[in-house]
Amino acid sequence: MPEPASSPAVLNGGSHYHAVRAQTEALCRPLAVDDHGVQPFVDASPPKWHLAHTAWFFETFCLKPYCRGYRPFDAAFEYLFNSYYNGVGEQFPRPLRGTLSRPTLDEVLAYRRHVDAAMTPLLDCDDAELAGRIELGLQHEHQHQELIVTDIKGNLGSNPLRPAYASAGEASVAEDGPAALCFVEFPGGIVEIGASGEGFCFDNERPRHKTWLEDFSLANRLTTNAEYLQFVAAGGYREPALWLSEGWAWRCANGIDAPMYWRQAEGQWLEYRLDGEGPLLPNAPATHVSYFEADAYARWRGARLATEAEWEAAARSLPLEGHFAPRLESADAPTFHPRPAAPSELPLAQLFGDCWEWTSSAYAPYPGYCPPAGALGEYNGKFMSSQQVLRGGSCATPRGHLRRTYRNFFYPKDRWQFTGIRLARSQGAAP
Amino acid sequence: MPEPASSPAVLNGGSHYHAVRAQTEALCRPLAVDDHGVQPFVDASPPKWHLAHTAWFFETFCLKPYCRGYRPFDAAFEYLFNSYYNGVGEQFPRPLRGTLSRPTLDEVLAYRRHVDAAMTPLLDCDDAELAGRIELGLQHEHQHQELIVTDIKGNLGSNPLRPAYASAGEASVAEDGPAALCFVEFPGGIVEIGASGEGFCFDNERPRHKTWLEDFSLANRLTTNAEYLQFVAAGGYREPALWLSEGWAWRCANGIDAPMYWRQAEGQWLEYRLDGEGPLLPNAPATHVSYFEADAYARWRGARLATEAEWEAAARSLPLEGHFAPRLESADAPTFHPRPAAPSELPLAQLFGDCWEWTSSAYAPYPGYCPPAGALGEYNGKFMSSQQVLRGGSCATPRGHLRRTYRNFFYPKDRWQFTGIRLARSQGAAP
Amino acid sequence: MPEPASSPAVLNGGSHYHAVRAQTEALCRPLAVDDHGVQPFVDASPPKWHLAHTAWFFETFCLKPYCRGYRPFDAAFEYLFNSYYNGVGEQFPRPLRGTLSRPTLDEVLAYRRHVDAAMTPLLDCDDAELAGRIELGLQHEHQHQELIVTDIKGNLGSNPLRPAYASAGEASVAEDGPAALCFVEFPGGIVEIGASGEGFCFDNERPRHKTWLEDFSLANRLTTNAEYLQFVAAGGYREPALWLSEGWAWRCANGIDAPMYWRQAEGQWLEYRLDGEGPLLPNAPATHVSYFEADAYARWRGARLATEAEWEAAARSLPLEGHFAPRLESADAPTFHPRPAAPSELPLAQLFGDCWEWTSSAYAPYPGYCPPAGALGEYNGKFMSSQQVLRGGSCATPRGHLRRTYRNFFYPKDRWQFTGIRLARSQGAAP
Amino acid sequence: MPEPASSPAVLNGGSHYHAVRAQTEALCRPLAVDDHGVQPFVDASPPKWHLAHTAWFFETFCLKPYCRGYRPFDAAFEYLFNSYYNGVGEQFPRPLRGTLSRPTLDEVLAYRRHVDAAMTPLLDCDDAELAGRIELGLQHEHQHQELIVTDIKGNLGSNPLRPAYASAGEASVAEDGPAALCFVEFPGGIVEIGASGEGFCFDNERPRHKTWLEDFSLANRLTTNAEYLQFVAAGGYREPALWLSEGWAWRCANGIDAPMYWRQAEGQWLEYRLDGEGPLLPNAPATHVSYFEADAYARWRGARLATEAEWEAAARSLPLEGHFAPRLESADAPTFHPRPAAPSELPLAQLFGDCWEWTSSAYAPYPGYCPPAGALGEYNGKFMSSQQVLRGGSCATPRGHLRRTYRNFFYPKDRWQFTGIRLARSQGAAP
Repeated sequence: MPEPASSPAVLNGGSHYHAVRAQTEALCRPLAVDDHGVQPFVDASPPKWHLAHTAWFFETFCLKPYCRGYRPFDAAFEYLFNSYYNGVGEQFPRPLRGTLSRPTLDEVLAYRRHVDAAMTPLLDCDDAELAGRIELGLQHEHQHQELIVTDIKGNLGSNPLRPAYASAGEASVAEDGPAALCFVEFPGGIVEIGASGEGFCFDNERPRHKTWLEDFSLANRLTTNAEYLQFVAAGGYREPALWLSEGWAWRCANGIDAPMYWRQAEGQWLEYRLDGEGPLLPNAPATHVSYFEADAYARWRGARLATEAEWEAAARSLPLEGHFAPRLESADAPTFHPRPAAPSELPLAQLFGDCWEWTSSAYAPYPGYCPPAGALGEYNGKFMSSQQVLRGGSCATPRGHLRRTYRNFFYPKDRWQFTGIRLARSQGAAP
Repeated sequence: MPEPASSPAVLNGGSHYHAVRAQTEALCRPLAVDDHGVQPFVDASPPKWHLAHTAWFFETFCLKPYCRGYRPFDAAFEYLFNSYYNGVGEQFPRPLRGTLSRPTLDEVLAYRRHVDAAMTPLLDCDDAELAGRIELGLQHEHQHQELIVTDIKGNLGSNPLRPAYASAGEASVAEDGPAALCFVEFPGGIVEIGASGEGFCFDNERPRHKTWLEDFSLANRLTTNAEYLQFVAAGGYREPALWLSEGWAWRCANGIDAPMYWRQAEGQWLEYRLDGEGPLLPNAPATHVSYFEADAYARWRGARLATEAEWEAAARSLPLEGHFAPRLESADAPTFHPRPAAPSELPLAQLFGDCWEWTSSAYAPYPGYCPPAGALGEYNGKFMSSQQVLRGGSCATPRGHLRRTYRNFFYPKDRWQFTGIRLARSQGAAP
Repeated sequence: MPEPASSPAVLNGGSHYHAVRAQTEALCRPLAVDDHGVQPFVDASPPKWHLAHTAWFFETFCLKPYCRGYRPFDAAFEYLFNSYYNGVGEQFPRPLRGTLSRPTLDEVLAYRRHVDAAMTPLLDCDDAELAGRIELGLQHEHQHQELIVTDIKGNLGSNPLRPAYASAGEASVAEDGPAALCFVEFPGGIVEIGASGEGFCFDNERPRHKTWLEDFSLANRLTTNAEYLQFVAAGGYREPALWLSEGWAWRCANGIDAPMYWRQAEGQWLEYRLDGEGPLLPNAPATHVSYFEADAYARWRGARLATEAEWEAAARSLPLEGHFAPRLESADAPTFHPRPAAPSELPLAQLFGDCWEWTSSAYAPYPGYCPPAGALGEYNGKFMSSQQVLRGGSCATPRGHLRRTYRNFFYPKDRWQFTGIRLARSQGAAP
Repeated sequence: MPEPASSPAVLNGGSHYHAVRAQTEALCRPLAVDDHGVQPFVDASPPKWHLAHTAWFFETFCLKPYCRGYRPFDAAFEYLFNSYYNGVGEQFPRPLRGTLSRPTLDEVLAYRRHVDAAMTPLLDCDDAELAGRIELGLQHEHQHQELIVTDIKGNLGSNPLRPAYASAGEASVAEDGPAALCFVEFPGGIVEIGASGEGFCFDNERPRHKTWLEDFSLANRLTTNAEYLQFVAAGGYREPALWLSEGWAWRCANGIDAPMYWRQAEGQWLEYRLDGEGPLLPNAPATHVSYFEADAYARWRGARLATEAEWEAAARSLPLEGHFAPRLESADAPTFHPRPAAPSELPLAQLFGDCWEWTSSAYAPYPGYCPPAGALGEYNGKFMSSQQVLRGGSCATPRGHLRRTYRNFFYPKDRWQFTGIRLARSQGAAP
């Protein structure tokens, strides 16, 4: 949930709003109508649901309270497309989202039109609270854009036909291997992390606060597929001593022996990417790993994962640039896949974009954290148990959405996001 | 599975084949693309799956063995659209049918075109085995036509928006109430049931055999909604003494307190029908009840359900006419709902069509039953445990599909078919 | 539930009552206190529960209604030890029976003393209804004596230590192999089955009624371990074409590849018996098989299972003798295991005792069946769905308990009883 | 897992060992044999299992590697009583511990005798590694002593008869109410937490390290039943805005509306304690609450829970005294229940003993944490995900077992331990 935007000017008289909204629909354009309704597993949602829910967000938090005389598109949508806001009311059961053939895709697109039309007059308002909510709605829509990509991948990638979302336009294989793995040292001491006063941020990034760090070091880039494959080949998935107890139970119960979307066929490892299934790319970052896998891999390497404070301290000195999701302007859909680390003069490559980096930090409130009042207070705060923080954004994160203080969070078992591994070490000793 | 057709002439040089195939697609025509992929619960399948599986049946059992040089539309479909034939190979998991957004509806329709084109030259063959398989394939397609209707109802009827499949074209409410309920007596003795040699039948209808019946009586018509509502109002769903033990456990675990598609709102009972939700029709037959409900209701009335032998003995003397599914010729979709019993000179009304009638007979092999060799032997025989026989067809059964010897079978808990209740009594004593 | 006893004389002034009650406790005597509380799986109950529940039965159905001034031992026991009688009230959840460490075994034995003391004055009553209830209570106790044996076996046999219940007193291996398997022919026609008016029987054995049988034949003895092992060795557990669909799913979900209590170690098949684990006895009957296994085995042999009517028709001409559970008089506990078929002049060996024989008949009401009024009507009738009838009794059935018309019933998946296989065939054709 | 003991002298030539071991058995003395085998829910273990497992620990980690010629009591126990050490081998499934009637209690006690006899010669060794393992074994036994108490309570307290473990010897109701609740301020800054070099500690308490704290305040005592009851009465269990999302789902799925062992009867709140069920004690600390409940309660009070660093910083200045489990010397078993806060001159009452205090800190490795090599490395480290840290010990923690740096950990849903609530606040602002 947002801190109030410092200035409504961010809305730019509406062009930003419409650009963000258009981007959401552009992401769905390569899909067949059939693809819009599928929920491949409980954690994912159908694209149609994302299209509707992001309209619902503006309808619920902007139009109903701020637009006099607003007529909801369909009264039942308040219930159907409420994700988890108990403060708004009951919610249609999440595991059944894939059974809602109605409203149809066309009706959902009409719903978006209806909401956009009603929103337009509000976009140059000067009400700070409303402007803050609109900005929050757009940040929220950014987040769902990323989920649309990963949820589409969850659907197409688990279909035995392995259909492609996008044609393989990008040359995603670097001819040269990535830089050798090395560890970059960072000094400890008192550091401040969290968001300070300027610009948009979510409530969970606040307040900025002091924390103490020992000296530490971080790997200069993400773990590659080739490196991770060594772990697989060495029997890492069969050695319980490498795993957290929960992780080992998860692995056994689900028969896990490789990252999601990997498959062995005729002695070769294949990986499903959004341009289809193909041989594993050795230099690309290992992705779609759970926290349990990332943690076990790090242990096997005599290393560990970074804390979120270490990560943020290291991120301070680096330009916020990386391989994020592009704005869709042409007819071609991007392949949305992390890229091999390019040669760089920066000490750390791939810190932003490519893959969300699992941290060893449980998702918890910062000291002094206070969620906003009302239903919007449910945005972030109520999820602060049993999850791990991830940092840095991914190839599916809309460009411009990420901050150095950004805290993403998922359950340790989750791996349908573009999650990856950056090794860390305590100074002097392993790990 | 079929007995060999007595004559390939039944195929009529192909016109029957094409008519049946066209009917399947006509049933889907009122649907949105979005509706084709939804599996509302595990027992039901998406319409798109039915469209593909019925093509798969001809491809697997006719084209692959009999059509030299046939090229399958897509090799993966053998696995994707195999329902339960272990003799053919592994099957895509049934509970996940609703996650297959690919092939798309358009691709599935192309698959049907491809199969139909390849089948056409075979339709005036004089190979008795092939002709028998084609006839079986068409009977199989009839069965899936009924499932398409009930599975669509399962989807639309559990959507909170309660969308209609068809406009309410038919006046389904008889102004006059149905005839008073009475019991018609039938004499016992040795009777023969099961199919004799002529015409198509499924293997489970054979062999024709003797059985002994005591005198019995059957209700002159199906139980109506008004009658069933008395059971509800009298607390029938709260009185365990009326229920089978399994049935009571099922009722409690699932919070059942009325037939499927019934809902109470503002003191009124509503029912979802394929033309939308409306007030319960008092004179229409109670439908969408489980065996457990039918059995409890009968006990409450001091009656019982008929055995399948009793039912078949009673059916011998009646014309095989009733309210079945019409052939779709116009643009209008029928509402597919059982009708109130019309005045009739026959001793038993509604014996055919309207609702499948639960019998007290477990689905078991007839004495001397022998399934055919090969994968087609899996059609019926392997389901002969834990299910109950239903007789008489329903408003969703294609006209011409039913026989007096026809044995349908479902689990006691199942109620998404058009299932209803005809009371029976042993002579002299209750029940 | 009972038909009224024809004469209260059967009670013998109490000696029969006390003998039956003592036998129940004698069965538990070889156990440690520790063994009395264990529920190895949901279907089984702890011996302590059986001891208490059989006292509860007399307390509930005899003492409370017929013994003026009776003071219950503990008011909470009405709830704790009610098995499934909704007419009496709520029941402690069955799956939690193994968590009741209180009342202790000593307290439960005191409960039995309390009930026996109060029952004694009633035992020479001349109230036919009460006498019938007492007789029912004793028949009920017989049934629980068998369950105590099979539930103890379920506990000890699934303990990795494989402890013995009894020392191996009996030489259970016949040196000579059993008679060659052959099929004995029986003529069809109208037969009467079910209990006629004299002597005790359960309500589900009534009324005696006509049924029509085709000619059939039955195997002259039970299937032996050696014969069943051929099925195992031939891959019977890996060939879905042999199995009912439900059975195959059950086999796959539970990793079943042999009868319960069989285990392969170092290339040898071992079997747990109540005198401990040892090599499989080739000539002993195969036991602890589910209906699914019995059915698949029969199909593999080109045979089938008998219907209950066939079984009963064949049983008419045979003396009701066999290997039943002995009365425990000495300190030694019997091993309770079916024996190899002994040489015999009878056409069918092992028809009574040794193993319950799965029939192909679903458990259903006989024509004109009517359960008694009140809670005792729940004894048998409410279980008439989804189960199969078994006939003939077993080595754990108390001698004298069985009748030719006796109908036992279990779910197709159940195999912790002493269940076995007798092959059957339709005349002329297989199967 | 332990840091090596600084001096083997702690073993005192064996008297400490035997005293600890005797205490474990003394805790079971009030039980019936029947009570020893029950596992009331998956998280709890039967007392007999604890008795055996604590012997197993010494057998596995001391006798097998250090006692030449040691003959295991029973080879199968290595598997049966291995709790979770994959490095030792496979483990008998935890959820089935309550089905092991063998070994009997007598056999398990003989197993303890056997292990104790073999251990005795090792108790005055001067091998530091062995001495460290013995000390670890005794600390481990301490932990299981607490679990025996809570698991017994889990059994007896969920039995509908509500039997007492101990007679109500202690006057557990203070006549005067506790001190008024107030918040005690603590200054922030850099603090060091974790164990330094001297004396025994578990590996998870190391290394001692710096952390930064903002100013904070802690409640002067634990939350009482009377205070918690206000939360219940105010509808705290029905207001989702107070709950973490996981907590609300847990509450709804399990129908939770009060702490474990509370029950409302005839308008009065009762609580099961180990001396039986009785009216709720208003001044005693609220106990048997989950993290979810503790967190929701704190939010409702405009407060929060402390972090473990705050707790430890506050604990530094207080004497390590409190209401812990006494050594059992007499025949009387203590009631093991937290007591009302007594008048005290200390700023914080009840910080040690009475109830484990939920902290807001996820259980995670300290910076530089390194588990020991081998199977003993599984003692603590592999559980560092999805759990919360608790601090301070309880009325069931053996006196002398706790340290200020001690980190206990349970899942947020767990509440069968003596868990309680101490409110905390950030300085200046709520919460």
